[in-house]
Amino acid sequence: MTTDAGLLLVGLRCVLCGTAHRPTIDASVCPRHDGLAGILDVVIPAAGARSGAGDDPLDRYRSQLPLPPGPRRLPSGYLTTTPLLPAPRLAADLGVAELLIKDESRNPTGSLKDRSSALAVELAAHAGFTDIACASTGNAASSLAGACAAVGLTARIFVPAATPPGKLAQLAAFGAEVMLVRGSYDDAYYLCEEAAHAFGWYDRNCAVNPYLMEGKKTCALEIADQLGNAGADWVSVAVGDGCTVAALGKGLAEMRLPRTPRLLAVQPAGAAPIADAWARGDENAVPVTANTLADSVSVGAPRNAVKALRAVRAGGGAFVTVTDDEILEAARILGTRAGVFAEPGAAAGIAGVRRARAEGLIGPDDRVVHVVTGSGLKTAAPVGAAFPEIAPTLDAVRAVVDLG
Amino acid sequence: MTTDAGLLLVGLRCVLCGTAHRPTIDASVCPRHDGLAGILDVVIPAAGARSGAGDDPLDRYRSQLPLPPGPRRLPSGYLTTTPLLPAPRLAADLGVAELLIKDESRNPTGSLKDRSSALAVELAAHAGFTDIACASTGNAASSLAGACAAVGLTARIFVPAATPPGKLAQLAAFGAEVMLVRGSYDDAYYLCEEAAHAFGWYDRNCAVNPYLMEGKKTCALEIADQLGNAGADWVSVAVGDGCTVAALGKGLAEMRLPRTPRLLAVQPAGAAPIADAWARGDENAVPVTANTLADSVSVGAPRNAVKALRAVRAGGGAFVTVTDDEILEAARILGTRAGVFAEPGAAAGIAGVRRARAEGLIGPDDRVVHVVTGSGLKTAAPVGAAFPEIAPTLDAVRAVVDLG
Repeated sequence: MTTDAGLLLVGLRCVLCGTAHRPTIDASVCPRHDGLAGILDVVIPAAGARSGAGDDPLDRYRSQLPLPPGPRRLPSGYLTTTPLLPAPRLAADLGVAELLIKDESRNPTGSLKDRSSALAVELAAHAGFTDIACASTGNAASSLAGACAAVGLTARIFVPAATPPGKLAQLAAFGAEVMLVRGSYDDAYYLCEEAAHAFGWYDRNCAVNPYLMEGKKTCALEIADQLGNAGADWVSVAVGDGCTVAALGKGLAEMRLPRTPRLLAVQPAGAAPIADAWARGDENAVPVTANTLADSVSVGAPRNAVKALRAVRAGGGAFVTVTDDEILEAARILGTRAGVFAEPGAAAGIAGVRRARAEGLIGPDDRVVHVVTGSGLKTAAPVGAAFPEIAPTLDAVRAVVDLG
Repeated sequence: MTTDAGLLLVGLRCVLCGTAHRPTIDASVCPRHDGLAGILDVVIPAAGARSGAGDDPLDRYRSQLPLPPGPRRLPSGYLTTTPLLPAPRLAADLGVAELLIKDESRNPTGSLKDRSSALAVELAAHAGFTDIACASTGNAASSLAGACAAVGLTARIFVPAATPPGKLAQLAAFGAEVMLVRGSYDDAYYLCEEAAHAFGWYDRNCAVNPYLMEGKKTCALEIADQLGNAGADWVSVAVGDGCTVAALGKGLAEMRLPRTPRLLAVQPAGAAPIADAWARGDENAVPVTANTLADSVSVGAPRNAVKALRAVRAGGGAFVTVTDDEILEAARILGTRAGVFAEPGAAAGIAGVRRARAEGLIGPDDRVVHVVTGSGLKTAAPVGAAFPEIAPTLDAVRAVVDLG
């Protein structure tokens, strides 16, 4: 999907001023605005529900994606269609007619971010880049590292030096080139940008790379295909930077279901700048100091607030905020009532469903989809003391069983 | 697939004496032999390559499985077809024409064991059990806990009290009833058996439950479908208890490919009782004290040695042993050259391919499938010190890049 000049055959338009930009593979933000404000949006020519065949979303939805022409670099099947699983016991707990879980922990490195990293690798490899850079301590970084290892590109990961060593294990396994930057996340981010430019590395930061959201969009295209004509009332997801919820809204709209679900956008109360803007009725997300245990959506200065707010508004959706205690309880019932082990950020949407149900936003007859964006294995804390220790006798077992 | 008397419509035959047994849902070992020696084998009537439709192997291969009749308890899509991914860079490293990775880390709780736990849950729920018991610290336990949570059964997990707390996190997330047994793994195992019998719990221990191997068999049925007529020369997998390699052999044989792959059965040198028996040319696996870092195949007294040895022999395969250093190196190249993060036990097969290639068992033109049986996320050790810490300046980045 490129022209002879190496341009992708899509449109690029600034979300703030509407200016059209050349769809180069390394396109960035609109220079007419300060900093990163002028995020670009990809316009796919004649988009619509045109699902192809196959299990790999980059094959199946090729006509709706900014993919380069020619053979894929990642093997077909690297991405797979993730399941949409009914969770009747969780639905009963939440007081809704149906709850369906889109389990993104099944992705190759355990998160929805694999979808955008796979697209980044296809674009970068096609354009001849040998290195891809990313500032992240979490799922974006590990997904990039995994996809790079699969095709032989170098992943350059910038993280704050204070990053817990446990978060780096997956990066190490994939052989990523990790730099521990003395300073804050913002220091790591800006150094990554500067280095990518200076050394000719492809930039995988969703904040400035307009194409990556289209990778995340495939999650919504799958949901729409899996729901079919029955549709659903709501799709619930946690919001950090705003990119994922915007991508879900875009994908659902493209598929033109008879009953398009509304978006329930859920932010932790300790990191809710986009929800605050929603409550005020404007598009200006005022940065906050993020304070939540849901690390994958702990974003104080979100870069895709405008896209997120518009996507939620366009579909008739809503924002809600939830406390960290509610998030922990949501993770608990996801595991114990649905058998899905989600990271806290990936459980926040369930807390949001409970909140929205209590507020009457979601009704008892509603059919609700929740997107589990990442695996709980990456953030699992050791446990043990909570379990009973017994002598190896039947009487000891009986004492435990009787207590239960 | 049951009769009116609640029997499954399959045959059951003792692997030692050939005696037929009634296919009750809670069938166990043949009582004519000491201890657990008389493992039963499931005989599917008129088995053959009869793949159905759909992505869930319990639906797709229903006619080849000991599944009860009626609607499934786990939602369709709980299990999915896992991808078979070409890894050309890893093939080049190993000196084989083609290497394909069957990535079982994509399963719901991150391991191949999900296939047998799903089958256990279907059988137990159909027969009216409310509790399922299992003695394990690893993938068998977490897969049982997840599947039980999805349908509302209680998972009763027996583990040695000395089990590292990190291994219990996934069990806790699924709300399993875990008992920390003061004693060895064997103490936990025998207490589990005794308690299952005493309290009427369904027994999920592969050692005594003949049906569970059929769940694992679906991995091979998928591999055969994915290979198609091209087939392959070898399927490589690590061996602990022997159940998985036996299941793979059984599944490959059932699918009757034009070119059925041979099995490369790989044991860690520190826990190689079945490979030792193979080398001696008999079926008597003499117990050893297991000593390997590959915890998922660290089995000193394997219970399915007979099935394993026969499956490998029947297909013209071979056993090899590998050192822990070779296993660690295999895990490293799986991550860095193929982008697959495997636990050590799931990487051992790659070390085996290298060993078999060096010994001339595998040739340079061979097409090899390796089964990654479980995710590396569960055993990931924290890292960090290995990465360079830098000041937030371009010069600091340049110094690191120049070194690389």
